[in-house]
Amino acid sequence: MAFSPLVDELVESLRCLPGVGQKTAQRMAFHLLERARSGGVRLADALSNAMDGVRRCESCQNFSDTEVCGICENPERSNGTLCVVESPSDLLAIEQTSDYKGSYFVLMGHLSPIDGVGPDDIGIERLLRRVRSEGVTELILATNPTVEGEATAHYISDRLDGSGILITRLAHGIPVGGELGYVDGFTLTHAFRGRKPLLD
Amino acid sequence: MAFSPLVDELVESLRCLPGVGQKTAQRMAFHLLERARSGGVRLADALSNAMDGVRRCESCQNFSDTEVCGICENPERSNGTLCVVESPSDLLAIEQTSDYKGSYFVLMGHLSPIDGVGPDDIGIERLLRRVRSEGVTELILATNPTVEGEATAHYISDRLDGSGILITRLAHGIPVGGELGYVDGFTLTHAFRGRKPLLD
Ligand SMILES: [Zn+2]
Ligand SMILES: [Zn+2]
Repeated sequence: MAFSPLVDELVESLRCLPGVGQKTAQRMAFHLLERARSGGVRLADALSNAMDGVRRCESCQNFSDTEVCGICENPERSNGTLCVVESPSDLLAIEQTSDYKGSYFVLMGHLSPIDGVGPDDIGIERLLRRVRSEGVTELILATNPTVEGEATAHYISDRLDGSGILITRLAHGIPVGGELGYVDGFTLTHAFRGRKPLLD
Repeated sequence: MAFSPLVDELVESLRCLPGVGQKTAQRMAFHLLERARSGGVRLADALSNAMDGVRRCESCQNFSDTEVCGICENPERSNGTLCVVESPSDLLAIEQTSDYKGSYFVLMGHLSPIDGVGPDDIGIERLLRRVRSEGVTELILATNPTVEGEATAHYISDRLDGSGILITRLAHGIPVGGELGYVDGFTLTHAFRGRKPLLD
């Protein structure tokens, strides 16, 4: 850009955001400069504070401002049920929509030998230590219904073989309100296999 | 979000970016925290510097780090031709793709009585002073081919009525490489009206 090194650097920096290319970065920079300078200043502060201050919870591995996060610190949530998810957004989705009141473990990924991601990289040993030391009675493996998510769930399940802990997986099936004709075959197969007697 | 006020504030702040809603802001925040902390720090600095340091060029109204921008300061570009555009991105598009070597005036908008945007809000008086004081011989009105862009061009043209300055507008027509069947009616009408003899 011929006219401003500061604008150039802003556009370049915005490209570190996922899904933001040159054109979008330029549009964002101009928008902030023209109409949202106070928003831009607020974002600068928020970024600086978060990049510096957000760590991983020592108990569940989720993002946290403190050594141990608010959920892990809440004694009411240590009820013997532990839910394993792949990412913070999965945790948020469960928190926002379900009535789950136990605690979590966030893998921050899934097993992926092809990408060199092994058990240590997603904290499996830490998870197993927690399961044993906290008297967990049910471990909910809420990894994604993808090849990697399933493999990760099976790996964890195998490692706890013979422990006597109840290991569960979220139900697959037709989405509530969904139409059969629009459901993919994988889901439909799962829904058939998981069919239940109609209760009256 | 239950787990981190710093992450909450980052997600909220990211929503000041155009086209970024709750879900996208969350995805951006998690991406920066998980995989791009140095990018996040760089963006924080770039934002802070740009919001603080970028002003408007006193001559062309474009964004600039200095009182007068690099294009306006370049004596080779004061060649009597002045190109009026609506936005910095229009200027960039011209700079990147054409061989235009004159100077610019950036309106940072267009006349829009319905939104309360009048001549003073887009610097028309400043433009007219510049045209008169700099001995401009050709004024290229490169506002957008929209209702507002055309109205703005006509307003400027009317204000310079009788000045003897050559006032031009960019050519409308079929895009190079475009197929007639895919060109909108408005463009096709312009292309017909602007038809030229075939030179051999
Ligand atoms: Zn935690
Ligand atoms: Zn300038």
